Amino acid sequence: MNNEIKNILESVKQGDMSVDDAMLKLKNEPFKELGYAKVDTHRMVRQGRGEVVYGEGKTSDQIIGIVDTLINAGQETIIITRLSPEKAAVLSKHHDIDYNEAGRIAVAGRFPEPDGLGRIVIATGGTSDIPVAEEASVTCRALGNEVLRLYDIGVAGIHRLLANREHIMQASVIITIAGMEGALASVVGGMADCPVIAVPTSVGYGASFNGLSALLSMLNSCASGVAVVNIDNGFGAGFMASRINHMEAKK
Amino acid sequence: MNNEIKNILESVKQGDMSVDDAMLKLKNEPFKELGYAKVDTHRMVRQGRGEVVYGEGKTSDQIIGIVDTLINAGQETIIITRLSPEKAAVLSKHHDIDYNEAGRIAVAGRFPEPDGLGRIVIATGGTSDIPVAEEASVTCRALGNEVLRLYDIGVAGIHRLLANREHIMQASVIITIAGMEGALASVVGGMADCPVIAVPTSVGYGASFNGLSALLSMLNSCASGVAVVNIDNGFGAGFMASRINHMEAKK
Amino acid sequence: MNNEIKNILESVKQGDMSVDDAMLKLKNEPFKELGYAKVDTHRMVRQGRGEVVYGEGKTSDQIIGIVDTLINAGQETIIITRLSPEKAAVLSKHHDIDYNEAGRIAVAGRFPEPDGLGRIVIATGGTSDIPVAEEASVTCRALGNEVLRLYDIGVAGIHRLLANREHIMQASVIITIAGMEGALASVVGGMADCPVIAVPTSVGYGASFNGLSALLSMLNSCASGVAVVNIDNGFGAGFMASRINHMEAKK
Amino acid sequence: MNNEIKNILESVKQGDMSVDDAMLKLKNEPFKELGYAKVDTHRMVRQGRGEVVYGEGKTSDQIIGIVDTLINAGQETIIITRLSPEKAAVLSKHHDIDYNEAGRIAVAGRFPEPDGLGRIVIATGGTSDIPVAEEASVTCRALGNEVLRLYDIGVAGIHRLLANREHIMQASVIITIAGMEGALASVVGGMADCPVIAVPTSVGYGASFNGLSALLSMLNSCASGVAVVNIDNGFGAGFMASRINHMEAKK
Amino acid sequence: MNNEIKNILESVKQGDMSVDDAMLKLKNEPFKELGYAKVDTHRMVRQGRGEVVYGEGKTSDQIIGIVDTLINAGQETIIITRLSPEKAAVLSKHHDIDYNEAGRIAVAGRFPEPDGLGRIVIATGGTSDIPVAEEASVTCRALGNEVLRLYDIGVAGIHRLLANREHIMQASVIITIAGMEGALASVVGGMADCPVIAVPTSVGYGASFNGLSALLSMLNSCASGVAVVNIDNGFGAGFMASRINHMEAKK
Amino acid sequence: MNNEIKNILESVKQGDMSVDDAMLKLKNEPFKELGYAKVDTHRMVRQGRGEVVYGEGKTSDQIIGIVDTLINAGQETIIITRLSPEKAAVLSKHHDIDYNEAGRIAVAGRFPEPDGLGRIVIATGGTSDIPVAEEASVTCRALGNEVLRLYDIGVAGIHRLLANREHIMQASVIITIAGMEGALASVVGGMADCPVIAVPTSVGYGASFNGLSALLSMLNSCASGVAVVNIDNGFGAGFMASRINHMEAKK
Amino acid sequence: MNNEIKNILESVKQGDMSVDDAMLKLKNEPFKELGYAKVDTHRMVRQGRGEVVYGEGKTSDQIIGIVDTLINAGQETIIITRLSPEKAAVLSKHHDIDYNEAGRIAVAGRFPEPDGLGRIVIATGGTSDIPVAEEASVTCRALGNEVLRLYDIGVAGIHRLLANREHIMQASVIITIAGMEGALASVVGGMADCPVIAVPTSVGYGASFNGLSALLSMLNSCASGVAVVNIDNGFGAGFMASRINHMEAKK
Amino acid sequence: MNNEIKNILESVKQGDMSVDDAMLKLKNEPFKELGYAKVDTHRMVRQGRGEVVYGEGKTSDQIIGIVDTLINAGQETIIITRLSPEKAAVLSKHHDIDYNEAGRIAVAGRFPEPDGLGRIVIATGGTSDIPVAEEASVTCRALGNEVLRLYDIGVAGIHRLLANREHIMQASVIITIAGMEGALASVVGGMADCPVIAVPTSVGYGASFNGLSALLSMLNSCASGVAVVNIDNGFGAGFMASRINHMEAKK
Repeated sequence: MNNEIKNILESVKQGDMSVDDAMLKLKNEPFKELGYAKVDTHRMVRQGRGEVVYGEGKTSDQIIGIVDTLINAGQETIIITRLSPEKAAVLSKHHDIDYNEAGRIAVAGRFPEPDGLGRIVIATGGTSDIPVAEEASVTCRALGNEVLRLYDIGVAGIHRLLANREHIMQASVIITIAGMEGALASVVGGMADCPVIAVPTSVGYGASFNGLSALLSMLNSCASGVAVVNIDNGFGAGFMASRINHMEAKK
Repeated sequence: MNNEIKNILESVKQGDMSVDDAMLKLKNEPFKELGYAKVDTHRMVRQGRGEVVYGEGKTSDQIIGIVDTLINAGQETIIITRLSPEKAAVLSKHHDIDYNEAGRIAVAGRFPEPDGLGRIVIATGGTSDIPVAEEASVTCRALGNEVLRLYDIGVAGIHRLLANREHIMQASVIITIAGMEGALASVVGGMADCPVIAVPTSVGYGASFNGLSALLSMLNSCASGVAVVNIDNGFGAGFMASRINHMEAKK
Repeated sequence: MNNEIKNILESVKQGDMSVDDAMLKLKNEPFKELGYAKVDTHRMVRQGRGEVVYGEGKTSDQIIGIVDTLINAGQETIIITRLSPEKAAVLSKHHDIDYNEAGRIAVAGRFPEPDGLGRIVIATGGTSDIPVAEEASVTCRALGNEVLRLYDIGVAGIHRLLANREHIMQASVIITIAGMEGALASVVGGMADCPVIAVPTSVGYGASFNGLSALLSMLNSCASGVAVVNIDNGFGAGFMASRINHMEAKK
Repeated sequence: MNNEIKNILESVKQGDMSVDDAMLKLKNEPFKELGYAKVDTHRMVRQGRGEVVYGEGKTSDQIIGIVDTLINAGQETIIITRLSPEKAAVLSKHHDIDYNEAGRIAVAGRFPEPDGLGRIVIATGGTSDIPVAEEASVTCRALGNEVLRLYDIGVAGIHRLLANREHIMQASVIITIAGMEGALASVVGGMADCPVIAVPTSVGYGASFNGLSALLSMLNSCASGVAVVNIDNGFGAGFMASRINHMEAKK
Repeated sequence: MNNEIKNILESVKQGDMSVDDAMLKLKNEPFKELGYAKVDTHRMVRQGRGEVVYGEGKTSDQIIGIVDTLINAGQETIIITRLSPEKAAVLSKHHDIDYNEAGRIAVAGRFPEPDGLGRIVIATGGTSDIPVAEEASVTCRALGNEVLRLYDIGVAGIHRLLANREHIMQASVIITIAGMEGALASVVGGMADCPVIAVPTSVGYGASFNGLSALLSMLNSCASGVAVVNIDNGFGAGFMASRINHMEAKK
Repeated sequence: MNNEIKNILESVKQGDMSVDDAMLKLKNEPFKELGYAKVDTHRMVRQGRGEVVYGEGKTSDQIIGIVDTLINAGQETIIITRLSPEKAAVLSKHHDIDYNEAGRIAVAGRFPEPDGLGRIVIATGGTSDIPVAEEASVTCRALGNEVLRLYDIGVAGIHRLLANREHIMQASVIITIAGMEGALASVVGGMADCPVIAVPTSVGYGASFNGLSALLSMLNSCASGVAVVNIDNGFGAGFMASRINHMEAKK
Repeated sequence: MNNEIKNILESVKQGDMSVDDAMLKLKNEPFKELGYAKVDTHRMVRQGRGEVVYGEGKTSDQIIGIVDTLINAGQETIIITRLSPEKAAVLSKHHDIDYNEAGRIAVAGRFPEPDGLGRIVIATGGTSDIPVAEEASVTCRALGNEVLRLYDIGVAGIHRLLANREHIMQASVIITIAGMEGALASVVGGMADCPVIAVPTSVGYGASFNGLSALLSMLNSCASGVAVVNIDNGFGAGFMASRINHMEAKK
Repeated sequence: MNNEIKNILESVKQGDMSVDDAMLKLKNEPFKELGYAKVDTHRMVRQGRGEVVYGEGKTSDQIIGIVDTLINAGQETIIITRLSPEKAAVLSKHHDIDYNEAGRIAVAGRFPEPDGLGRIVIATGGTSDIPVAEEASVTCRALGNEVLRLYDIGVAGIHRLLANREHIMQASVIITIAGMEGALASVVGGMADCPVIAVPTSVGYGASFNGLSALLSMLNSCASGVAVVNIDNGFGAGFMASRINHMEAKK
């Protein structure tokens, strides 16, 4: 950013650029105004990954408009989260998408080749946590990661978890997804030597209070190396895991 | 109780008992009025175990008065919970007591011989949970149970728990005590084949909200065979465990 | 477990078993992988009772698959909880089931003969608590217990409770089920000399906050010998009560 | 009030009162301004009982000033609540007060003769609830009511409550005071045929959450004829009970 | 009750009653067992008013059965609360009922003549609180009270309240019903000299949290002489108000 | 008000007005009683703006009735909030209304010319907050304000906000509307030199707890000059902003 | 800001400023780094009022250092909030301050002449709310406003409020401060025609939950023209009120 | 682990190891039992970093004992968190420690050379958050990371944050620490292209509810690439950041 400013200033000094043009450049918005949304077309430059579309509360037309804008801006892989089957059906008529119904998540464009440091393991406590896990899984793959899914290995049958000990020890990053008492994060966190992202889910009833129980459990994990995202936020966990799995040396 | 009424009625019919005496008997209070408390001197008869004294919010004099009343009523073992060291010091001048400072619990009279079905295992997640565990342990022993203490075997180091697998498998009843995320209850619950009593503790900080996190975790345990008592309620867990450990056939 | 390891080691030493076979045996997973679930086929061995199927959030096909697996593994009684009438109808075409619509619970296979220490009493505060009570009742019976149901004996009409005093005194274990203020647990807990499992229900409105009021009441019960399970968790209460009712001496 | 306005208007019409005097009268403040407080010297006229002084957060000097003002205004009985022993000691040097240390409540002036419809019964669940009960008791007596105190009759020993059944049946109004699970209100409410005022107390620990548990219990009482005041609000309960006990026909 | 026991004992002594008959009398249940409910046919004797039927969660058939039982037991006025229009339609084919759709409350039998001490005023903060107010109003009338309804006099337009000052000053009991910030109870409580029953309602949105805001407001009312019932509990408020309005001297 | 009283008194003194007429005048209600509502026809006089109609929980007929009353009382612009499209359709047959479907808000009568001190800026964090923003926008315009809408400028892409810095610096009042973490209010509050009204929205999921997260954020804003209204209360924010934008010197 | 950039660019073009100097100017930090704090010395320019010092959690030395920095930067009036008497004593040795002990707030430098649109009225519900009111009052005065304090006019004695009706009607802005049920905001909000800032206080006990009750009340106020700041945030209310009281036309 | 088992089995087969020795090896505990704690001496092997000592609730003697054990086991750097100055003073007599009083954290042994991928930036919203930041900072350095601290750059003065934009863009991992509304995490999260760990702090008052407000804000962050740890958990954030900063390729 700094260099850009310097270059502009130099151009102005050289007379290669008028003051007005420089003004314009310095104020030029790095997003495209669609009226109902300001689409961030520079995010790829700024943050290394392109804009993601949050589908909830947007009409099919709005989603199509945003996807068009991003494609035109050159983004090769576009993730659309919280997308209902109905909207996915409409969207699929305009764009070639890969839709995962369990995870309610679609990808427009191509899945990149995995280029991360290692494999991301996604573990769930039970069968009911699978939708959140699928959202995380698609997100990881769309961001260039290899994924291993270990579903239904909750702590009430600790042997199921122990049987997968090697997978856990060899993971680059682990996403643990659990509702109810959310104990999976602590047990996995104690076994693993890699970063663990914990996702509480709203699975449960009564005193689970829509995920509050699992959320508090995970925040209070007695294991180190565990950080938490919002309830049911499979996308957020996948995004964070991908960032970690793509770490590289910064001088 | 029914038989007693019948006997009284028969006596009245036979003329062996006057109507007024029968009235008296039917209304006779099974507790002793001390002004500041109604001491339940029949509880041994009614519920199999004697009255327990809750020390919090009572003066040393009140506690001494209640213990006197119970001793006079023939109770051989008297548990006094939530007893501060200061009050314990005063009490020890009037009665021969066995005081556990960590658990803030005293026993007046003698500890009975263990006569339960098996051994009660008391497991804690961490070192900070020990006070609650000691309260449970003294309670169990005072009610006639053999106790095995497994402290600091929290799930973040699952091997510590697995190393004690045999003790867990051989327990008659297990009391799991944990703060923070309270995951111990679920993991033990999944390994054991006996009833598990879970005690959340107020150990932790921040989002543990004084034990709320562990409480919700334990209530939402995905393992079957787990029931929960109040936060920090070591006595309640010990009492319940003892009842279970003294089960016998009822025709 | 220990003996098993020892036997394997002895066999290897004797040359009766190859190293590879021993490896296999030691690593053999005690669960069957169905893709969407890891069915625990060893639980009967490990914990004395077979796997229970939680129906919520599973498709009819998944449930049928799991039941098949368990039947093939030799489990004689299979409990399926939180089963909607629609799924029950589908399931009943593949398996011979006994479905309790109020409790939304089904049993595949046969109900065993009662072989517990005594009778489990299930008491509810009101008529609206009956669905939870039925879930508990079917669970108890499917696990080999005799059950007595005392419905609608809430504390606002204490004579209804007192009229059943004998049943309460003679119970082996009591399950108290109540919503609203949940006071039933304390009153029953004060009368009984056996373990009491308390189930708060979401019955009520306004400040009952979906069962929170009853839950807190039961956790704070001033009576000893009361432990609590999750809101509306009739199955959990039944399972715990059955475990207690099948206690036996462990050397 | 209406008549007063009419009289003023008539006087103005007759010329007996100037417009300015009438203006003054119509705007005359029915309270005395002390700078730090506006003392309500007309409350006796307006609401039948005099001003009550809330001692918390007021200095001894402020309290003395307010009491002086009320005495000068002719109030014969002045209740001062939430009064610490230290402030009570200072106050007693300026005014002749009757101080109840347990209830932290003082009365300046004389206790009136009981002139209510009947007796107010004040029942507590345990010994620790006595401070709140004493606050209620002094309030009732200072407002002209006969009081019967039944302390430590909590529902965990229902026979203690049943032994007092007659007192409960004969009460004019009942104040039930309980912490922990607060079940006393429901049981008493189901037995009594008079209005019941329920006071939750902050007695308890863990999941009592400083009285929240008892508060919710009492609000959800399944018994009719129960209304609730704030946690630990013995004064409020006593005031309400006194109002009810002094009901009379209004044409 | 005491006399009854004495009489039975005397009869047994005189030989006028056999021991078995006495046993029977002493144990005779004051409720009728319908299987799904224990109908309290003695409540009129015990508490002065008959049984009330809570319609929610009961089938039309169950309600009809309970109403039949009560009519046969001689109860002249039967209140059925939380009754949906659909069930009311079914019920009206079997019994002559007066149904108030706004309040979802029906009365079978006749409304008694008002015989209370005075008039019960029912005030609401807004138009949306009317359903709760109607439930209270029908309850009051069915229990023998004259009712005056003052709707939509919330504190944001204090002149609407002041314009009704006389009605408030002349009331025997006042029921204040408000959602949102629930301030009506405090303002009315400060103006009135009679008992005030406050009913928080779930009217509002956002931070009203389904009535929690109004509930807390009312519990914390700075006015004396206010007691609170559960959120939306119009029936409970009406019942309590009626009890207060029927107070009479007890020797 | 004072002068009015004085005038009445003078008239009475002069004999120009009878005592009875004066009584009437002093008691004359400044609202019109419709049975289901007390319409405040004097609010324009008293508070500078006319009555606003809250559409939720009112029938179309009731709304039409209230609007008629206000029009007859001479109110030129009538705002109807929380109006469903169905009711809007009915209403539009009786009155000429301008209906904003996103904001569920209608205006009957004419929009006044903007006459405020400056421009009100309405900023939202995301696209999903637009309905609340539209409610605020219509309210502002109907109350005589010029409005600038800046939608989807949430803090996660701070450059979108910075690009609008000038609009923020030049605003007269700013309304910031955001769900999820609600950080927009703090960042805008730190940049602006005018009053900021913050509106938390219920947009979000999981730990947003229906707007609680944004509400707490905004209340805890580390920026000065920010005040908060209820969750989703676009109308309230618009009304408050308009009041501020119409400030004028008061001697 | 824009002009400044333009000027710099022009200077660069003219050769009057080197590229490096321009770089420097564009990046020059508008705050002074003290190590433990970044003091905002440009705020007066940017937001019209100078930096305010939050005393809590800062040492006396840190506070002295920050005040020095601000004085050196030319700020004439410096507000220090949440300042303990001990720190105030230390601070007063280095700077000439005006300390308000009740409000725990100090002002270094001079109080400006009032130059607002009118008078700010600060009203409290009770005597215990005075500390918060004093914090607001000093803040308002230090920011150039005339203040009128109306203390102890809570709604339980509505005549105290009505007696001050004129003051309320003539206010430019009103700050209402109340704990417990916080109803004052709604009643004042309904009477006033100016913006009302509501401050909930932590005054109360039991179900006031440290100010939560008053906070929710104020957020749910049924009166329009009310906005809320954090619990006990007298400073924030004063700052907001001052901003509103200094509104002026923006073209 | 697997290979180890195989080797043991081979040795047994070869006769090189007796069955009993093999039994012993397979059961050998990887922790040292101190009675009050089970010190994990294998963690370095298992998880790459040594055991960390949580000082809260442990006596000085217990801490010294654990540190001795770890030193004897060869651990070179030992972190002791939540260590009071008093205990630190005692500990420093037995071991050479580096104690950070603000962060209440000590390091025994040597700080390793930084060997991470890049620099960890630790940013706080205000001065009061510094203790938590120091805990994080010492943790990071003790685990081999270079740290840059940016304190007091909260979002209310966004220019302070923008002035540090380059540091944020060049960070390897960022830890954002903020209380009150916690908005810093979202703004930084939107600017950075590296993983962000958010730490809510208990700094604030009133509706911050001891950190709940900041916690919810951070969990609901609209920025991607943000994960959250417990309130005030500086250590946890530092540990997680270090793990991420030491990521390396796993085949």
